[in-house]
Amino acid sequence: MARESTPADVSPAIRLAEAVCAVIADHGLERASIREVASEAGVSIGAVQHHFRTKDDMLVFVFEHIVRATTDRVRQVPLGQSIAQNLSLVLRELLPLDATRQREARVYVAFAARAATSPRLAAVQAETLAQITGQLAEVIERAGSQGKPVSTFLLSARDEAALLLAVADGLMFDAITCPDNLDPGRLTTLLDAYLTRLLGGF
Amino acid sequence: MARESTPADVSPAIRLAEAVCAVIADHGLERASIREVASEAGVSIGAVQHHFRTKDDMLVFVFEHIVRATTDRVRQVPLGQSIAQNLSLVLRELLPLDATRQREARVYVAFAARAATSPRLAAVQAETLAQITGQLAEVIERAGSQGKPVSTFLLSARDEAALLLAVADGLMFDAITCPDNLDPGRLTTLLDAYLTRLLGGF
Repeated sequence: MARESTPADVSPAIRLAEAVCAVIADHGLERASIREVASEAGVSIGAVQHHFRTKDDMLVFVFEHIVRATTDRVRQVPLGQSIAQNLSLVLRELLPLDATRQREARVYVAFAARAATSPRLAAVQAETLAQITGQLAEVIERAGSQGKPVSTFLLSARDEAALLLAVADGLMFDAITCPDNLDPGRLTTLLDAYLTRLLGGF
Repeated sequence: MARESTPADVSPAIRLAEAVCAVIADHGLERASIREVASEAGVSIGAVQHHFRTKDDMLVFVFEHIVRATTDRVRQVPLGQSIAQNLSLVLRELLPLDATRQREARVYVAFAARAATSPRLAAVQAETLAQITGQLAEVIERAGSQGKPVSTFLLSARDEAALLLAVADGLMFDAITCPDNLDPGRLTTLLDAYLTRLLGGF
């Protein structure tokens, strides 16, 4: 009992999800077996199987968990003065700018890659992209009432949102798969340059 | 002998690499074992081990093979009238616009995700990103002599190139991990909208 370092009110499934993320971030998704996760979490294989009947069930739960962690953080972002500032603050939460976001992005890329051959993970990825794109499209629509007429955009708000998310995802992907290439300072410079180009200034 | 459908002059290692790509595109990278590849290629496990001493050797060879296939195709792109047209034609080769490029992009994303936890694959990814970014930066530099002064870019040519590659990689990543979201028509519309924004027109 004295060795328990995680708060007692965190659900055991969430604690296991954190153990899965640690295995994936350090060794890749293919190492995230029920056995390896039990070892990482310091519990028995049976304890993991009590929460997740199959490895597939475990992976879907953990993908949803990591997406929720990111969207919860996005919701807590203190908003700024302008649309460009707000989009920058929100999208920075998707970029690997510190140890937490680096780990999250590594796990996210591993799951998204796996979604290409797993229908259940693909469903989580589809829901995630639709939700973020919808939120970005709303903000871009709103830019019309703050000086940037929507008619000056090249695309519909929905397409502008999909392109903007692709910019953030591409920066994240290139940074995670090649960390020396894009450090945090360069990532935010490139993101903000795109937003300046989109919205005409901050 | 009569059943041999691949040209005899294709090296056996390349034929095995194609078998590895087929396994990865259909079932994910974690299924690409020496045993599974031997079965896919219709050869013995020993025949695979004759070419690749370890699974790691095999994966590095195949990652280099898939990158080479893309860059070879890029080199054969017939160039157009303007810088924007040429960048569009080149970057379309990186997007999953047909069955070949879809398969290639799925395999590429799987390898790039694995590069986050594999130093040897990370080296291939670093070399790939550096090479493509360098080539894009040269084209962007040249835009200065064709009407778009380099001084009107927000960033250095190298940073503009990194941002442009992130746009293409992000579109590719979002399309591969969520195919219904971004069909080929929408992918090229979004890419060309970005190039219009960057270069002021086609």
